[in-house]
Amino acid sequence: MSSRELVVLGTASQVPTRTRAHNGYLLRFDGAGVLVDPGEGTQRQLTFAGARTSSIDRILVTHAHGDHCLGLPGVLQRLSLDGVAGPVHVHFPAEATDTIERLRHATPYQDRTEVVLHPDVPGEVAPGPPFAIRAIALSHGVREHPVPTLGWRLEEPAGRRLDPRRLRRLGVPREARSELVAAGHVVVDGRRIEVQQVGDPRPGQVAAVVMDTRDGDGARACADSADLLIIEATFLDDQRELAEEVGHLTAGQAAAIGRDAGARRVVLTHLSQRYPDLDGHLEEARAVAPDLDLTVASDLDVVPFPPRR
Amino acid sequence: MSSRELVVLGTASQVPTRTRAHNGYLLRFDGAGVLVDPGEGTQRQLTFAGARTSSIDRILVTHAHGDHCLGLPGVLQRLSLDGVAGPVHVHFPAEATDTIERLRHATPYQDRTEVVLHPDVPGEVAPGPPFAIRAIALSHGVREHPVPTLGWRLEEPAGRRLDPRRLRRLGVPREARSELVAAGHVVVDGRRIEVQQVGDPRPGQVAAVVMDTRDGDGARACADSADLLIIEATFLDDQRELAEEVGHLTAGQAAAIGRDAGARRVVLTHLSQRYPDLDGHLEEARAVAPDLDLTVASDLDVVPFPPRR
Repeated sequence: MSSRELVVLGTASQVPTRTRAHNGYLLRFDGAGVLVDPGEGTQRQLTFAGARTSSIDRILVTHAHGDHCLGLPGVLQRLSLDGVAGPVHVHFPAEATDTIERLRHATPYQDRTEVVLHPDVPGEVAPGPPFAIRAIALSHGVREHPVPTLGWRLEEPAGRRLDPRRLRRLGVPREARSELVAAGHVVVDGRRIEVQQVGDPRPGQVAAVVMDTRDGDGARACADSADLLIIEATFLDDQRELAEEVGHLTAGQAAAIGRDAGARRVVLTHLSQRYPDLDGHLEEARAVAPDLDLTVASDLDVVPFPPRR
Repeated sequence: MSSRELVVLGTASQVPTRTRAHNGYLLRFDGAGVLVDPGEGTQRQLTFAGARTSSIDRILVTHAHGDHCLGLPGVLQRLSLDGVAGPVHVHFPAEATDTIERLRHATPYQDRTEVVLHPDVPGEVAPGPPFAIRAIALSHGVREHPVPTLGWRLEEPAGRRLDPRRLRRLGVPREARSELVAAGHVVVDGRRIEVQQVGDPRPGQVAAVVMDTRDGDGARACADSADLLIIEATFLDDQRELAEEVGHLTAGQAAAIGRDAGARRVVLTHLSQRYPDLDGHLEEARAVAPDLDLTVASDLDVVPFPPRR
């Protein structure tokens, strides 16, 4: 099992179907567990996925529509029931605070988990490690009544790929290497050795969640250079006008965003129930970006991060 | 398809499992649709059951614990999305009003269905037709912190079974019969004919929902003479002390309540996830009430009302 992967819990837009539960995306990033947009039923989908609620330490909500957060009470109550101490951090657009507060205490229960609410505005909202969390403003809802929505990026800081040959040449012992990477230098036999001398820059990995949104600067900034891009593709291109009107993407637009962003692996999700199958989504996306590593998500898919650049 | 039946949407207590969704019970009674205790996921379970939300005109909530009502927002929002005009009546213990208000407007949505909230106290809370709804106080939660809980009864009024022979003898034409039953009499050729002359009393049917509760007067009053009794059986008898402490029933107790109440068909549900299978529940119930028409519910079971007495 990869230590960096996406577990798809649900893929439906607005209305669940027999094959698609409401949204839910669990990002496993080494030891961390980040749950994005827990729609109704996420608690049970975690069980189907064999994932423990205790593995969740952050929850990111893109916006206050029910299909993206009505599963929050069940997840929070389950954490308490399972005796998870926390803290569990919940991030959401500041404008959604009333909604999140209602869901936080939707029904009475024995509240034993430390839950920290973070009403966020765009920017870096948590520094990490193992990754910083960045919020990007998206554009959702009709233009006259926009729905405050944040896309989310997990950004691993850049590191160094150490070169064994140079390490040997400069006599850096194995046990000094982690200090060298962490501090940027190490002292060996009185000589100060900088990490630049023995290693090349290694870009950190980035996971990005782009939903719900119309095409535009926000969606494109959120997707930029993502290693793993999770992006909504509610409609097909024949509904491009409707998508623009209500603030959603088509499969063609989502693929173009992934292509233009240089995303390395792209997962289309948040699929309207109007499409009985998803051949159309795949076809449309492939036509736009034939070389993109792209899948249309099914519930309970597990998608590993691509190998490091 | 029977026109009076129970559609079991979920059967789990507290925590859903791979085979058991959270609570949810749809009672179809001729044209009426009564949804009891919509737990998280009820919206999707309705889809699996092939039931339309538009068939729901009443929702009854026994108490404010999450496994009995966290699915309410999804159902109400779906009614609006499906363009159901309503009214849809939501009944719940008056003490749960704050919770129900939070769930009613959990997240922003286009609120198009007329939803009428009924904070109820024990007694007859809706007169019907086609049935009166009666609330009975149950006994749930630890004794020091009881959780206000109402059991629910649908009580069809007593009617008349018309006797074709006597109708013919008194010359009551076919088209006058419904008026005869509704008004209690009809005038034929200047003669007033009372319904008693041509029909024998026919008891109405009763459906009862007994959950969550410890054994006691409330549970027994709620189950009394029910044609269809839906009753919680969270534990087995080896946990009788725990059941008494927290306010739940064992399978043995539930079967005894059904037997003593003269219930004609009994459905055990709200089953703790601690039991990997339900042979124990069936065995224990059968030992207590070998002649009872009794089943342990599975998700998506459809249980017809028994034939009329």
